[in-house]
Amino acid sequence: MTKPPVCVLGLGLIGGSIMRAATEAGREVFGYNRSADGVLAARGDGFDATEHIDKALKRAAQAHALIVLAVPAPALPLVLEQVRDIAPDCALTDVTSVKAAVLDEVKSVGLLANFVGGHPMAGTAQSGWAAGDARLFVGAPWVLSVDDHVDPQIWGMVMDLALDCGGVIVPARSDEHDAAAAAISHLPHLLAEALAATAADVPLAFALGAGSFRDGTRVAATAPELVRAMCEANADQLVPTLDQAIEMLQKARESLATDKSVAHLVEQGHAARTRFDSFRRTEILTVVVGQDGWRDELAAAGRAGGVIRSALRVLGNPE
Amino acid sequence: MTKPPVCVLGLGLIGGSIMRAATEAGREVFGYNRSADGVLAARGDGFDATEHIDKALKRAAQAHALIVLAVPAPALPLVLEQVRDIAPDCALTDVTSVKAAVLDEVKSVGLLANFVGGHPMAGTAQSGWAAGDARLFVGAPWVLSVDDHVDPQIWGMVMDLALDCGGVIVPARSDEHDAAAAAISHLPHLLAEALAATAADVPLAFALGAGSFRDGTRVAATAPELVRAMCEANADQLVPTLDQAIEMLQKARESLATDKSVAHLVEQGHAARTRFDSFRRTEILTVVVGQDGWRDELAAAGRAGGVIRSALRVLGNPE
Repeated sequence: MTKPPVCVLGLGLIGGSIMRAATEAGREVFGYNRSADGVLAARGDGFDATEHIDKALKRAAQAHALIVLAVPAPALPLVLEQVRDIAPDCALTDVTSVKAAVLDEVKSVGLLANFVGGHPMAGTAQSGWAAGDARLFVGAPWVLSVDDHVDPQIWGMVMDLALDCGGVIVPARSDEHDAAAAAISHLPHLLAEALAATAADVPLAFALGAGSFRDGTRVAATAPELVRAMCEANADQLVPTLDQAIEMLQKARESLATDKSVAHLVEQGHAARTRFDSFRRTEILTVVVGQDGWRDELAAAGRAGGVIRSALRVLGNPE
Repeated sequence: MTKPPVCVLGLGLIGGSIMRAATEAGREVFGYNRSADGVLAARGDGFDATEHIDKALKRAAQAHALIVLAVPAPALPLVLEQVRDIAPDCALTDVTSVKAAVLDEVKSVGLLANFVGGHPMAGTAQSGWAAGDARLFVGAPWVLSVDDHVDPQIWGMVMDLALDCGGVIVPARSDEHDAAAAAISHLPHLLAEALAATAADVPLAFALGAGSFRDGTRVAATAPELVRAMCEANADQLVPTLDQAIEMLQKARESLATDKSVAHLVEQGHAARTRFDSFRRTEILTVVVGQDGWRDELAAAGRAGGVIRSALRVLGNPE
């Protein structure tokens, strides 16, 4: 079975990198970008890009392309309506760092059956076409949703694209992805902000700040808009995560004030970090996409550290 | 004026490094270590060490040596009693990371008038004589206390030692040092522990943990005993610091739950980190140690980023 063409909507850092990487892997790729500058830059580098979304979507519909939603989050609702109007039968994935909101948007335009959410976890410090890189995803985790609704054939298509880009696929349910992102990405940002802001009020703190302070506040240097965007989009998961961290700190505070001891928190934290250091990725090899219970099997394997490095068999596809 | 000999009590990482560094700078240095192993190792490297503290202290008393307290914190009370009994007139400094507790100990044995607290802020991952290094302090901040009681002559002696070891002196009051240490060193440790422990409860978190999570939990890998020792010794300063951080996080949590916004915390944190990045050290050149108001002047200069890189004039000493 030949792989479908890829239609990338939005040619910024992530979309532009997917266009380059999939092209290098021998795929037919074309794309749309809202700004003419981005389109000209992509064309100048020899890629097939247009600033007319309707043209891109008509071509996608005719070619049964896999559409990659890589526009900024605020543009998603409008773009999804255009997809529904022009290319309602195309397979669909995205690259957004919070999955629940996108899932809601896709559901509300009636395209859920075509959709498999994705989150390539690769650098975001720069932006725009020029920042893209065909090798951006090589070895990086690329989360693929295995929610109850996902179709095996479409899942297989998105799996192929992620692997063609060099990604290491972590299968996960959207809600579990978002809960994990709250704990490992959004909470660290808020803790770093609180650390920097607390120290700023202490005379001499900056004069003595070194090692652990510099490390602990590094992500507070991220542009506030970016931090806000990701934290606020994941508020539903971040609030309970933040509650848990605050409760731990509050208990440590009580025990420090009363018994001069932070033993409990310190031992808990050290044990957790030790487990993280010894956490090993294993390769998922035997699951057949589409067989009974495949979604649950993949979600469980992902939780346990399982990743997909080469294409799994998809039921109904030739081997 | 010739510099006094240096008597180092405790030849672990810090004490052993001071012995090496001061020797390289041409100072007469001798030392004591409790364990015979440490003494033999130091002697094997050509240094003058004994396992008899009374011998070391008698020699210090005769030679009017500057005594450096570099024994582990639990040993301090006993060692201070021996200093009082055998060498009560010697100038005295220490290398402990929390200053208030040491100040109390020194006061309770009646040696406050001889004492200028010190904190060389250099690596502590390893320990013991073998881990020492003559260059450990080169370029590192070395806090010297300018508390109300400190004597200019003794301050000058300790300044000379810190500079001979290659340190960059940050003058500071003991209480301000401890408050700053709570904010820049002890709080980051507790936040890292809370982050690691929170994530440990979230399925998939370790599978997706990368960049900001790895950075944010790095210090949670520190041995729990070390983290506890420093946090618990500084409980008086750490409790209010922790309260402030918890309050900021709690407010962000409320605003996230109610208005889906973390704007306030994120902007505060980013502004603080930006100020930290642009914080510049300046050299303190004109203060004369012993002149009217010199302690306040040095404390203010230290707060503003001032450091001492070459010896200040000491009133009453030849220029």
